[in-house]
Amino acid sequence: MAIGIAILGAGIFAREEHLPAIRACDSLSLKAIYSRSEASSTALAKSADVDTYFDSPKSPSKSLDDLLQRKDIHAVVIALPILVQPAIIRKALSAGKHVLSEKPIARDVATAEGLIAWYKEQKIEQIWSVAENFRFLEPVVYGAEQVKKVGGSVTTFSMKLYGFVDENDKFYKTPWRQVPEYQGGFLLDGGVHFTAGLRGLLVAGGQHITHLAAFSSLLEKKLAPVDTVHATMKISNGNNGTFNLSFGTEFKSGFEIEVVTSKGAVVVRPTEVVVTTKDEKGVKKEDVKKFEYSAGVKPEILAFAKALEAGKGNEKSSPEEALMDLKILQTLLESGEKGGKVMKVA
Amino acid sequence: MAIGIAILGAGIFAREEHLPAIRACDSLSLKAIYSRSEASSTALAKSADVDTYFDSPKSPSKSLDDLLQRKDIHAVVIALPILVQPAIIRKALSAGKHVLSEKPIARDVATAEGLIAWYKEQKIEQIWSVAENFRFLEPVVYGAEQVKKVGGSVTTFSMKLYGFVDENDKFYKTPWRQVPEYQGGFLLDGGVHFTAGLRGLLVAGGQHITHLAAFSSLLEKKLAPVDTVHATMKISNGNNGTFNLSFGTEFKSGFEIEVVTSKGAVVVRPTEVVVTTKDEKGVKKEDVKKFEYSAGVKPEILAFAKALEAGKGNEKSSPEEALMDLKILQTLLESGEKGGKVMKVA
Repeated sequence: MAIGIAILGAGIFAREEHLPAIRACDSLSLKAIYSRSEASSTALAKSADVDTYFDSPKSPSKSLDDLLQRKDIHAVVIALPILVQPAIIRKALSAGKHVLSEKPIARDVATAEGLIAWYKEQKIEQIWSVAENFRFLEPVVYGAEQVKKVGGSVTTFSMKLYGFVDENDKFYKTPWRQVPEYQGGFLLDGGVHFTAGLRGLLVAGGQHITHLAAFSSLLEKKLAPVDTVHATMKISNGNNGTFNLSFGTEFKSGFEIEVVTSKGAVVVRPTEVVVTTKDEKGVKKEDVKKFEYSAGVKPEILAFAKALEAGKGNEKSSPEEALMDLKILQTLLESGEKGGKVMKVA
Repeated sequence: MAIGIAILGAGIFAREEHLPAIRACDSLSLKAIYSRSEASSTALAKSADVDTYFDSPKSPSKSLDDLLQRKDIHAVVIALPILVQPAIIRKALSAGKHVLSEKPIARDVATAEGLIAWYKEQKIEQIWSVAENFRFLEPVVYGAEQVKKVGGSVTTFSMKLYGFVDENDKFYKTPWRQVPEYQGGFLLDGGVHFTAGLRGLLVAGGQHITHLAAFSSLLEKKLAPVDTVHATMKISNGNNGTFNLSFGTEFKSGFEIEVVTSKGAVVVRPTEVVVTTKDEKGVKKEDVKKFEYSAGVKPEILAFAKALEAGKGNEKSSPEEALMDLKILQTLLESGEKGGKVMKVA
């Protein structure tokens, strides 16, 4: 029998990604949608033909607490504003529900660590996973496999994400993103995807980021406090690379992660992976694999459903992984605030 | 009447670049070639059908001093090992010759500053220029013009040079490069080209590099002490970018400098420049200009010849420009040695 699930949050990502991903997953059965306000919850719930829950205005048996008391709902996917999530994660887990909460795991490392410590203390069977769709992007998954297959020692690497968030950007229009009350603003929210992506490829090469030094800047005033960070990073074998992330470059855009080893190179882009190696005769060759663009949420939800069936969280969605993505991003922001001071990551 | 000139040095660059460049310049007349050893000097002098000078073995009227006493030689191009050059530069200028000496200006900033101070104290009319062919590369020159034309404020930038110097590399085979007695080894020698190239484009955008933080590493043991540096750099308007330089990546190669402004972007590669701007209707457009590959030495020698005629050194070849290229490279090396410590450049 399909597992009953609810979506907490009725924003863009819930509507465009979570809803269709749950619909596409045979082992999940969407029962309800909750959002703080009746208007937004009901709009999405109606379109999905499921029950609506909200806390404003107050209405009998329509609150989040009411939703969490339903016996036919076993799990919730949480896609609420960053500052709101931790309390709701605790509440849902305490109510006996499994949880898949959205990235970033929390506003900062201290809050995230507190949440993880609390979760461990509960010694409960409910699974708490943190969504990071980049760990399920086909090119990232394939790229990591290729880094492992290529082998050798990582010699250099780079992560580049350049984009331009204008006034009409659908995510920018979200009020809690426009006036962020958490470090880094858009850079925290969007940035963890890219620390996750880079980490995925580096870990496949047996490396983790140990130190970094970053400068940060604000190119587009509306994205305050910072929208750009450029860093040099050192990995566990002592080699190094760069990390370039900006949401404020109108005339440069693109996403690329590259990991080079002593035996080959892997370049991951949104719809392709290029692998350079040498053939048996020592001649360099390049293999290009193309992918259709996808946000990776369907395989992520599928992995969560399988984890529910198995009674054990998927490692890719572990809170510890999400914490490490956040730790690197926070260290980038802190190094930037301190004018490029070199900082230890882990 | 053509200006009499001699080449001091009979290595790869003298043979492959300086000799043909001087031959191609109508206003210069090559009179002699000097190298420390008779064998190397005479081999090149014979092929060029000019007089040979050397100091080993000692031979009457064949020494460098003898060459510098010739009245028909007005200028010298010096392409000798880095550690040897400063003494020869002083000697040639003191003998009344104009000098174009090869980059880097000296082994370190202190030596370079000492040399510049000495030159100024002499209050002589002889021109001392320092060669940096990257300032004469057509794509770099055109790219800088485009940065100026595009206008706007520099938002981000990057310099990437990846290459692999193997045992058979003609420059690596030079004994003084194989066992370098100066900081940075190959990275100093080759690296100043790329600090020069990046500076050229940034200066066109009204910027200079103010701070940097770098990690360095040695990927290929034979290139000790370091062959790789990855840095984040801050420019005068507070924005930032990255600088990636490695001679030890077998599976990654290429050269690219990019400067992005609030009004467009300019990408310089060895044989093309791509300019992105918006047209009158606000639609983005890309202009690609192709170039034939050239090392830039011919226009550099031509500029030196013109400077000799005008009695005033070309600004692109000023010792101060070469000093700034070296200063940035030395700061990169020092930051790397200090584990990524952020450092002020200027």
